[in-house]
Amino acid sequence: MSVDKTVTPIGVREGRVRVVIESVEPSVDGGRFAVKRVAGDTVVVEADCFADGHDVVACQLLWRREGAKAWDIEPMLALGNDRWRASFRVDSIGAWQYTVRAWVDPFLSWRHDFERRIDLDDVRVAALTGAKLIEQAAARAAASEESTLLLAWSRELVKVVKADAALEAIKRLGLDEARGLVAARHPDLSYAQTDPVIYPLTVERERARFSSWYEFFPRSAAGDGKRHGTFADCEDWLPYVQRMGFDVLYFPPIHPIGRQRRKGKNNTLEPTADDVGSPWAVGTTEGGHDAILNELGTLADFQRLLKRAGEHGIEVALDIAFQCAPDHPWVTEHPEWFKKRADGSIQYAENPPKKYQDIYPLDFESGQWPEMWLGLVGVFEYWAEQGVRIFRVDNPHTKAFPFWEWAIARLRKTWPDLIFLSEAFTRPRVMHRLAKVGFSQSYTYFSWRNTKQELTEYFTELSQGPGREYFRPNAWPNTPDILPQALQYGGRPTFMARVALAATLAANFGLYGPAYELLDHRALREGGEEYLDSEKFQLRAWDRERGDSLADFIATLNTVRHENAALQNDAGLHFLDIDNDELIAYAKVTPDLSNIVVCVVNLDSHNVQSGWLQLDLSALGMEPLQSYQMYDAISGAHFLWHGERNFVSLDPHRSPVHVMQMRRHPKREQDFDYFV
Amino acid sequence: MSVDKTVTPIGVREGRVRVVIESVEPSVDGGRFAVKRVAGDTVVVEADCFADGHDVVACQLLWRREGAKAWDIEPMLALGNDRWRASFRVDSIGAWQYTVRAWVDPFLSWRHDFERRIDLDDVRVAALTGAKLIEQAAARAAASEESTLLLAWSRELVKVVKADAALEAIKRLGLDEARGLVAARHPDLSYAQTDPVIYPLTVERERARFSSWYEFFPRSAAGDGKRHGTFADCEDWLPYVQRMGFDVLYFPPIHPIGRQRRKGKNNTLEPTADDVGSPWAVGTTEGGHDAILNELGTLADFQRLLKRAGEHGIEVALDIAFQCAPDHPWVTEHPEWFKKRADGSIQYAENPPKKYQDIYPLDFESGQWPEMWLGLVGVFEYWAEQGVRIFRVDNPHTKAFPFWEWAIARLRKTWPDLIFLSEAFTRPRVMHRLAKVGFSQSYTYFSWRNTKQELTEYFTELSQGPGREYFRPNAWPNTPDILPQALQYGGRPTFMARVALAATLAANFGLYGPAYELLDHRALREGGEEYLDSEKFQLRAWDRERGDSLADFIATLNTVRHENAALQNDAGLHFLDIDNDELIAYAKVTPDLSNIVVCVVNLDSHNVQSGWLQLDLSALGMEPLQSYQMYDAISGAHFLWHGERNFVSLDPHRSPVHVMQMRRHPKREQDFDYFV
Repeated sequence: MSVDKTVTPIGVREGRVRVVIESVEPSVDGGRFAVKRVAGDTVVVEADCFADGHDVVACQLLWRREGAKAWDIEPMLALGNDRWRASFRVDSIGAWQYTVRAWVDPFLSWRHDFERRIDLDDVRVAALTGAKLIEQAAARAAASEESTLLLAWSRELVKVVKADAALEAIKRLGLDEARGLVAARHPDLSYAQTDPVIYPLTVERERARFSSWYEFFPRSAAGDGKRHGTFADCEDWLPYVQRMGFDVLYFPPIHPIGRQRRKGKNNTLEPTADDVGSPWAVGTTEGGHDAILNELGTLADFQRLLKRAGEHGIEVALDIAFQCAPDHPWVTEHPEWFKKRADGSIQYAENPPKKYQDIYPLDFESGQWPEMWLGLVGVFEYWAEQGVRIFRVDNPHTKAFPFWEWAIARLRKTWPDLIFLSEAFTRPRVMHRLAKVGFSQSYTYFSWRNTKQELTEYFTELSQGPGREYFRPNAWPNTPDILPQALQYGGRPTFMARVALAATLAANFGLYGPAYELLDHRALREGGEEYLDSEKFQLRAWDRERGDSLADFIATLNTVRHENAALQNDAGLHFLDIDNDELIAYAKVTPDLSNIVVCVVNLDSHNVQSGWLQLDLSALGMEPLQSYQMYDAISGAHFLWHGERNFVSLDPHRSPVHVMQMRRHPKREQDFDYFV
Repeated sequence: MSVDKTVTPIGVREGRVRVVIESVEPSVDGGRFAVKRVAGDTVVVEADCFADGHDVVACQLLWRREGAKAWDIEPMLALGNDRWRASFRVDSIGAWQYTVRAWVDPFLSWRHDFERRIDLDDVRVAALTGAKLIEQAAARAAASEESTLLLAWSRELVKVVKADAALEAIKRLGLDEARGLVAARHPDLSYAQTDPVIYPLTVERERARFSSWYEFFPRSAAGDGKRHGTFADCEDWLPYVQRMGFDVLYFPPIHPIGRQRRKGKNNTLEPTADDVGSPWAVGTTEGGHDAILNELGTLADFQRLLKRAGEHGIEVALDIAFQCAPDHPWVTEHPEWFKKRADGSIQYAENPPKKYQDIYPLDFESGQWPEMWLGLVGVFEYWAEQGVRIFRVDNPHTKAFPFWEWAIARLRKTWPDLIFLSEAFTRPRVMHRLAKVGFSQSYTYFSWRNTKQELTEYFTELSQGPGREYFRPNAWPNTPDILPQALQYGGRPTFMARVALAATLAANFGLYGPAYELLDHRALREGGEEYLDSEKFQLRAWDRERGDSLADFIATLNTVRHENAALQNDAGLHFLDIDNDELIAYAKVTPDLSNIVVCVVNLDSHNVQSGWLQLDLSALGMEPLQSYQMYDAISGAHFLWHGERNFVSLDPHRSPVHVMQMRRHPKREQDFDYFV
């Protein structure tokens, strides 16, 4: 058979790149979207790297801030079965990137074989091969000290072979560990492969991962339900909110409220003259998304509130609802941003047969979409310029995904510390897509997950499913739109259990107060989830000093959250076996197991429930028969537990919840109170 | 806030494409590699397609033969939760492609809302909107009959509105189903999205999915262990191989065998003058990979054998082992295809401290890799030109992956009916990569999976893991290199059990005979897996008429395989609960459940084992208390089973295996023999 030497294989540029890189993790949709982390995190990256044959493969993790020219580099370590791992620390917020490089390493392959050679002739021949490889490494090390060292080593190796040294002497020299490491630092990358995918990574500030939200209607801040609240009134609430341990104070839209087709109390269609309307019906002739409702105060008042909130360790989050009341300025200034009906009128929101004639949705298929996108992003820009850094976005799933991807990326270029919460209560794929295109946090189905099985399945999916790399749940037991059936009928034990579940299952949680802590459970209609006399349509009076308020209980929950790193992260959640379906139990742990919190919640609001809780002590780095202390931050009790099975009993009328910090290696048992 | 109309958003070409396509399945590494199917298969494709808001999304599956200009198109049907499905039939072998297109459909969205409208005014306005949309569909339908129909419909709709028709009449006309379907056939694709990934699909002939291999050393075909076998002698074996039901007859390399450093019997280093050497030491001065060993016959003899084999329904598969004996012509003609040692000699194969001085490996980092690749692919081309269509490739994992990807694609352009079996017994990622780059079938770890747990885990992974789309297992209970410990000590029951497991767990299986059917269990060394007096190094005498031969048992297995479509596919495997760890039970089913085979194997070669087998009858489309017949093709027995739990007992000394065809809806019970 003759080979035609004039022909070269078509379509293969370099056939000698033998190494393969597969399955780089973490990655979202093969690198199409960014993985999310927060500043200070260690990003652990794994990949499959291998080649044909028995040669030794080496690989590196490459990472950089987006826009940086050079990569930082870290060698990856073999985990076995062709899996490799390395990590890097992200010390600042913004856009980062990483990828993986691998190659078949001639020097390491030589070294691996040389170590195993037992025949003098072979060792002599191989030593000369090694000397050559070391000389090449010296050349790659340029004119450095390492180059000099390697060159000397190479020559020495040739010399001992020529001097007929003994096998052991040649091998000892060739396998010199220190110099071997120097040679390995200057690998031959001629046939290296770099994963063509540059994996994007969004690094946010810590609050994106760990936050406690308090939603509050400024209109009710005066407290008596009669006078319209102002930003100045809101300042009086700051110590209260701080005392409960919240760090985000979120306001429904603060803009002028449409007058045309304004809704009355309890969502009626006939408002009275003094009805305040829904804050989500944004805009009137006085202004739109960049204006402030007169009754609340001025921009200066708002800025003073931001400042005072900051002094209380609280950030103010605004609600951005991209929809317009019929009298919003955009309706006349930009009629082309809205759909027209066949009769020429602007299309109001509808989901036939339901009509929402007080709301005009924006048309994301408008011919003037570029102008509209700039107008919309301008709203965020305006409020970011006023100092707002957290936005809760209303119904983002009714606006086009490409807009969000573009807008969030654009805004983060100027304000990398912006946090966006997606309020999309819709189908799973849609919610996940919004998280992928950039939202920092997402509302969840938590409000409707009540049973042990529902909660276990859902939070296992959230903490361990593919979404864990980009979907940060923010769990709410209630919102102004959602008074779940469980809260309508479950009484105080259910209010306690639900907020405790939210605060411990999710690193980000929030609630709509003071309705929550004051146990507001009255629904507008049997079977519905709307609040009676909802603040969405009217002012409310709230007596925050009421004796039955859950404010102290909530404060305790937030204190535990702040004191336990395990509760500040959605990873590290493990559900525990407990032999009672009305009791749910789970552990949250930090990766290094330095902080372990065990929660047990009684889901039955009527009866005492008891059971035996099973812990996998060896997985927690403990002995199976070890004793340890469990400190319940809710009751203040200290339990001394022993071994893997321990008894738990919760009376819902006292407290339906244990949030227990595991304390290992107690020094002296007599130091503790026992309540077993 | 003013919007600067001169600025347009940067980096977004068309912001109105609101639809999203995600998670297209099947796909291998996001479309980097081809999914595998065989001609006649129905390819089921699913994708997540969705958009913002409540508009109706529509999507299509697009497919074509590679190189075709136009796509075939099939609408995808919604499965719920934004998942869509469609399928197409691949009626010919070769390279195919598919992708998904989706869009927000204005006409379907309009129709969805129109159906729900209850207000006359709304219906009138909406009817006019619909008329406009239908008119646009008519324009897209060009000057067809459908265009005329749609135009007329549109006008009629305007007319009834103008004529003040009743709500019901307007709605009935607007919702006309037949004309609606016509309109939907001409969708507005202005803002459609087509997945930028074109998913490749390799369609092979059926034998790639379903084949029975018999490996045979032609050198022993004479039968007496003294005279060297010839291709003419091999012809005499064809009826025997056919009777056992095999359709692939695979020969170790048939090329001239190196004389330099030839190995003697039992792999010794000192051959006698009449030692025949290893067929895998390819090449001598008489010729290399495109030559035939003189002792076997001529090319004409080989071609006659191919023809005669074909007449027996048997294809001959050749073994391509890309390595050279020291006297292979390539060593002198192309010394640059081999690595040199530091002393200038050519590097023999080694895995220090082991040396294989009779073998020179090729250097895939050779500077002349293009010429070498052409030389290697030329070997396949040469034998394909002689009529060979199945190649078993020896140790493909010691040759570069890019070579295989290029070579297999190139060869399939000329011979799309080529089948390649990868003989890579190595780490999982490496084996999978070879399957991804194009090998039709792969050897497996089956030979070393013995226990119920091992077999269950491994075949669950093979049939349901991600590899199911590209990795076709070919299960072998033995090979000339592998006489597993189980066969060395398990006796006849183990020989029966292991071949039955291979033949029923895997659609592709093979064995090395006559060593297998003649129960050769003598190992060269205690603890090793090499055969004593291996045919790899010497001729053997085989008495195929021996009374204890398993030939009839194997013939029965192959008959069952041919009669039951469920056994011809690796999908549709489900392990069944049986309350005895020495019994393994599994069902194989066709997708339409028209063929159901239940296998039970006694893994204990010494004792009778019994147990209760659990079937999920409702999953098989049956009633929980139904009676049905199980026909055991091995024993010929008919069992009448009842309900979900039935008793099974297997005596290894009679038959350690049931391979039972489930026969439902028996007409008259008295037609059956009962052996319960």
